[in-house]
Amino acid sequence: MTEHLPNGDDAMRFVTQSEAQVERLPWGPHEWLCRPGLTQAENLLLVRVLMPPGEGHAFHRHPEMEEIIYVVSGTAEQWVDRDKRMLGPGEIAHIPRDMVHGTYNAGPDTLIFLAILSPAKIQGPPLIDVSQEEPWRSLRTNKA
Amino acid sequence: MTEHLPNGDDAMRFVTQSEAQVERLPWGPHEWLCRPGLTQAENLLLVRVLMPPGEGHAFHRHPEMEEIIYVVSGTAEQWVDRDKRMLGPGEIAHIPRDMVHGTYNAGPDTLIFLAILSPAKIQGPPLIDVSQEEPWRSLRTNKA
Repeated sequence: MTEHLPNGDDAMRFVTQSEAQVERLPWGPHEWLCRPGLTQAENLLLVRVLMPPGEGHAFHRHPEMEEIIYVVSGTAEQWVDRDKRMLGPGEIAHIPRDMVHGTYNAGPDTLIFLAILSPAKIQGPPLIDVSQEEPWRSLRTNKA
Repeated sequence: MTEHLPNGDDAMRFVTQSEAQVERLPWGPHEWLCRPGLTQAENLLLVRVLMPPGEGHAFHRHPEMEEIIYVVSGTAEQWVDRDKRMLGPGEIAHIPRDMVHGTYNAGPDTLIFLAILSPAKIQGPPLIDVSQEEPWRSLRTNKA
């Protein structure tokens, strides 16, 4: 349901399942719950990612944004810089602005996680893929 | 586990259940997953609240912070300004900076939700209680 707020925007204060904006990306559907154009977001982006088994969002960085990964269900092989941790439901990774990171589904079920990013409004590209650059290209193979 | 980062801080990149910082508040335990002193948070605060049946975090505002409430389990009677919505698992409320809001457990089970706030570092008080001021004092009674 779209509510009309004092500023004339169609921004929403509540976002339920049917109101999420779904984006299909190679590493699974993204359900946007908070971003400009949906809510009055200035500082906060929130997207729920449903990552099928075997998939991953390879090493990348957000030049202007800080991030939290919060695992809802499943198991994530989570990298922050050169550190790896297996994360289960209710566990998080914190990624300082511009730090390289990656998330891979390490379990047999769909990995569901929240990606929380700040700020919501930036000037440059939101994401830089570094997965084909060293040391990132060889990191998972070397440490496996 | 505490990791030693290049800046010499004991800030963590991963926070698991045992590493969360638990704070006991009147409306239920707060499990801090991301805040300065725990992670290298600059823009993002994340706390998981376990609210018993019948409890609530009465109307308040955060003068310097924008917020998202994300329901993990249970049912929230969520207010944003004068608008009320019942929120279930996976649903959110977005609260612009300084807007009055409140969260009440509307179900028979513990309500578990994430409170995500930004920025993480502020100058003034994080929270102003307005629950004893009108229209907030009478709002739930009038609309019930």
